[in-house]
Amino acid sequence: MKKRALLYFLIFTFSVFTNAQKSNISWIDARKLCVEGMGWSEGIEDFTRLPGKYKSIVRDEIWDLSRNSTGITIHFKVSGTKRIKAKWTLRMNRKDRPMHHMTEIGISGLDLYVKKNDKWVWMAVGKPTSPYKKQAFSLISNLNASESYELMLYLPLYNGVSKMMIGVDKGASLIVPPASKKKPLVFYGTSIVQGCSASRPGMVFTSMLSREFDIPVINFGFSANGRIEEYFADVMGDIEAKAYFIDCLPNMKSFEENDVKERTLILVRKLKSLQPKTPIILVENAPRWSYFYYDVNQKIFISLRKGLKGAYNELKKEFSDIQYIEGNQLFANSESTVDGVHPTDLGMYYYYETLKRITENLLQRQHYKP
Amino acid sequence: MKKRALLYFLIFTFSVFTNAQKSNISWIDARKLCVEGMGWSEGIEDFTRLPGKYKSIVRDEIWDLSRNSTGITIHFKVSGTKRIKAKWTLRMNRKDRPMHHMTEIGISGLDLYVKKNDKWVWMAVGKPTSPYKKQAFSLISNLNASESYELMLYLPLYNGVSKMMIGVDKGASLIVPPASKKKPLVFYGTSIVQGCSASRPGMVFTSMLSREFDIPVINFGFSANGRIEEYFADVMGDIEAKAYFIDCLPNMKSFEENDVKERTLILVRKLKSLQPKTPIILVENAPRWSYFYYDVNQKIFISLRKGLKGAYNELKKEFSDIQYIEGNQLFANSESTVDGVHPTDLGMYYYYETLKRITENLLQRQHYKP
Repeated sequence: MKKRALLYFLIFTFSVFTNAQKSNISWIDARKLCVEGMGWSEGIEDFTRLPGKYKSIVRDEIWDLSRNSTGITIHFKVSGTKRIKAKWTLRMNRKDRPMHHMTEIGISGLDLYVKKNDKWVWMAVGKPTSPYKKQAFSLISNLNASESYELMLYLPLYNGVSKMMIGVDKGASLIVPPASKKKPLVFYGTSIVQGCSASRPGMVFTSMLSREFDIPVINFGFSANGRIEEYFADVMGDIEAKAYFIDCLPNMKSFEENDVKERTLILVRKLKSLQPKTPIILVENAPRWSYFYYDVNQKIFISLRKGLKGAYNELKKEFSDIQYIEGNQLFANSESTVDGVHPTDLGMYYYYETLKRITENLLQRQHYKP
Repeated sequence: MKKRALLYFLIFTFSVFTNAQKSNISWIDARKLCVEGMGWSEGIEDFTRLPGKYKSIVRDEIWDLSRNSTGITIHFKVSGTKRIKAKWTLRMNRKDRPMHHMTEIGISGLDLYVKKNDKWVWMAVGKPTSPYKKQAFSLISNLNASESYELMLYLPLYNGVSKMMIGVDKGASLIVPPASKKKPLVFYGTSIVQGCSASRPGMVFTSMLSREFDIPVINFGFSANGRIEEYFADVMGDIEAKAYFIDCLPNMKSFEENDVKERTLILVRKLKSLQPKTPIILVENAPRWSYFYYDVNQKIFISLRKGLKGAYNELKKEFSDIQYIEGNQLFANSESTVDGVHPTDLGMYYYYETLKRITENLLQRQHYKP
C-alpha cells in the first residue's frame, strides 16, 4: 500500500479572508487532510475504493459499488473553532438511491468522531437533506474554541462523494495528522460488510473494529456482489494488511457447496502466494432467523457453510494462520437485523463483538512476534 | 380500559371465493382481528392513540401525533397458508414525512413477530414502497402451510394507518385470540418513547418490554411534545394500568428546574388520586454525549434532572410506590444514538435492558401481592 506521506503534520491557519467572508467560515478541501480507508493513493479517484487499473478486471457491479465511499475517513485536528460544517457532493442524487431499510444518514450522510482520553467517541452526524447531489450541513456548533479536537469524519456507506469540503471558524487552525503507520485490516464481503443497515456511517462493524484498535480498515464490501472471486486475491494482495477477512457467504445463494469450497481454495491460495505472512479469516454467514420457517432456503444456507468449512479444513493443513468464524456467533438473537439479513446497529454491535475477540488475538500475536 | 371482548376466539375460514380470485389471496380487515395498544375501544378512530373526547383538551400537536400508530398491534393466529400479505393506507403520504435519521420501515412500515416456544421471535417486515398513502407488501411467502402460527403485527411508528388489510392463501384459517386480560404498561413521553429511531416498528423499547413480559403496552410517546402536562393525568388515569412510566425530560429543554418539579408533582398527585394503587416510575433523560462539549446545554440538562429528582424526593414521602430511573443507566455508551438524542436499535436495547429490570420487579411484586 502506498502511503500518503506528503501531508505530514501540515498546519493550516485560516487568518486571512477566503471565499466565505460573509459567514466567517473557512472551507478546506478534505483531500488536503488525512484520508484513510482508500487502500491506494495513486491511480484512484477521490474517495473511492478501487483504482483505475482494476476497472477492466472487476465486474461492472463491483466497479460501480466501489464508487461508494464506505469505510473512507477524513482525519484531522482542529482548534480555535466553535463550528464544524460540511459541504459534500454525492455521486448519485439521493432521490435515486431509495433504501427502505436504511437511514438517509447511513446511505448518504456523514458521521463525526472525536478522540477523548485516547478513545474515539461519537460526536455528530451530517444529515443529507437535499434530494439531489449537493449537500450542506452544520455538523457541530458548540465546541469550546479554546480546546483542540482530534476528529475523524466517516463518508457515506451507500453513495459516493465526489467533493468534500470542511468548514471551520475563520482564524481556526487545522492540523493534518500523519496517515497511520499500522497495516490495515482488509474486509472482502457483502452488503453487511458495506454497512447495510448501520444507522450512521461509523456504525459498520468494520469501523467499530477500526476505532477499538485504532487501526485503519479497508472495506471491500460490495452489496450483493461479494462472491469469492479469484481476481480479488490480486486486489487484496495489493495491500499489505494486518489480516484479510473473507466474508462473502450471504451473497453466494446461487452457488453450490462445492463452488464455495473451490472458490475459497483458489482465492486463499492465491492470496497466500502474494502475501504469505498475513493471516486470513474465513467468516460464515450469520443466521437468517426467518429461514427457520423455510426448509429449502435453510438447506441452501447450511450447504454454503459446509462449502466454506470444507475449504477451511483443507487450508488449515497448508497454512498455519487461517482462522474460521462460525456464523451463529455473529447475531445474538432474532432482533439483530432490520429485514432478516441486514444488521441494524444492534446486529452490527453483536457482529463487532465476535470479530473483536479474534482481532484482539491477531493483534496481540503479531505484537509479540519477534 | 374498555375491553375488545366481542372477537373472542373468532375463526375465519376462507374457503369461498372473495374479491381476490385472481391472486388466490383472501383479504381480511385488521379491525376484525385482535387490536391491542389503543387504550380505548370506543370513541376512538381506527389505529390511533387518543379518543375524540380528548381532542379539545390536548394541544393540537399532541392530537396530530396521536394519529400515529406507534405501539398498536394486530394479533392473530393463522394456519393453512404459505403467504401473509399486507395492504395498508397511511394517514400521511410517505413523501411528506421525511426523517433522515429513521428508516422508512420504522416511519411507515410494518413489523411481524411469531410466537415460537412461548417467546415472540421476529419474522418479517412490511416495506412501504409507494411515496403516497397506499402501500402493499408481501410480508412472508414461505410458511409451512401445515403448521399454525401465532402472529403479532406492529403498525408504523411515525405515520398513521387509516386502513389495514391482511392477506392469506385462500382456504387458510384465521383465529382471533382474545385481547390480553393483563393490565398494560403505560408510557408517557417523547420521540424516544414514540420510537425514534428504531429501525422497525417492533424495536421500540416499550415493544421489547411488551414481548419480554407478554403484556400489553400503551404508547403515549409524542415527538417533541411529551411535557409533563397536567391533563395527561386524566388521559393515563382513564386506563387501568400495571404501571405508569413518565419519561418526558428530553422534551423539557425550554423549562426551568422548578417547572419540571412542579409539573411532576401536579401530574403524579392527580394520577395517584385517580389510580391510587398503580405504581408510577419517573424516568430521567438519557445522556446526550455531544453535550460534553457544550457547557450551556449541559447545565440545562442537569437542571432538568434536578427538577425531576426534587419531585421524586417529595413524592416518595407521600406514596410508597413511586420509583426513579437514573438517566445514565439508559444508554451504555456514545454509540447508543443516531444523532445524540434518538436511540437506534442498539440504544433501544440498552434502554430496554434497564427498564426490564424495574419491570421485572414491578410484575413480581404485583404477582405476590395478596
